[in-house]
Amino acid sequence: MIRESRVRRVVATGTFDILHPGHIYYLEESRKLGDELHVIVARDRNVRHKPRPVIGEAQRLKVVQALRVVDVARLGDATDMFRPIEEIDPAVITLGFNQHFSEEHLLASLKERGIGAEIVRIGEYRGDPCTSTRRIIERILEIRGRP
Amino acid sequence: MIRESRVRRVVATGTFDILHPGHIYYLEESRKLGDELHVIVARDRNVRHKPRPVIGEAQRLKVVQALRVVDVARLGDATDMFRPIEEIDPAVITLGFNQHFSEEHLLASLKERGIGAEIVRIGEYRGDPCTSTRRIIERILEIRGRP
Repeated sequence: MIRESRVRRVVATGTFDILHPGHIYYLEESRKLGDELHVIVARDRNVRHKPRPVIGEAQRLKVVQALRVVDVARLGDATDMFRPIEEIDPAVITLGFNQHFSEEHLLASLKERGIGAEIVRIGEYRGDPCTSTRRIIERILEIRGRP
Repeated sequence: MIRESRVRRVVATGTFDILHPGHIYYLEESRKLGDELHVIVARDRNVRHKPRPVIGEAQRLKVVQALRVVDVARLGDATDMFRPIEEIDPAVITLGFNQHFSEEHLLASLKERGIGAEIVRIGEYRGDPCTSTRRIIERILEIRGRP
């Protein structure tokens, strides 16, 4: 029996609060690792390791969906971060250079849930001066926040 | 003689300082008016009718180029705003709902330059709360600018 050739899905995740070329680089590098790029956009309530996003989740999702490199984008699950990953069943999950997950812990948790995806950390993009949402916000406070 | 069927190009323009769904709506509505969407991204030095952009022109261009709806994006000319329009030779030029051009003046200037494009004003997008760069910046100053 010949096995049906399987679409190789890649999952990328993030907040994507104010879109910049660092995000685009992360997504483009992720896309190269498979046939379809699925993006899970963090829910507002689940962003806890850094300040709450400036832009609400529905609007952040719309901007990510508009990118050419993205095949499918959806919001994360409100309570179970692994549920959308189970549904997508990816061959690869990518992490951004500054994402706070530990690869080992994540891999262990995926195994517990029976998810066999490989984890790939994407390197830092260094092409532009304002490629972090934090830096863009700092710049706005600096140039527009003066009384 | 049968005339070769001509690609109907649409030109959209803007600063696109911090990308939001209002920009995407403007570009998607523009794209529907033809076969190819060409976007002219304003040069930093040419943004004079509102505060200077937070994000530099090269970075703003990269984000616009990453959108699925955009066929070609380029920076505006440093001194002659009509030069890229002459080069693209569009059937339609679209204006955003809040762009400061007067349709009549623009049409007169295009005629003077021998550019026969139609001008279409795209309506306002009302789907999300933060669909203007000004409002996004105000929100950042409000929630992050407190001492």
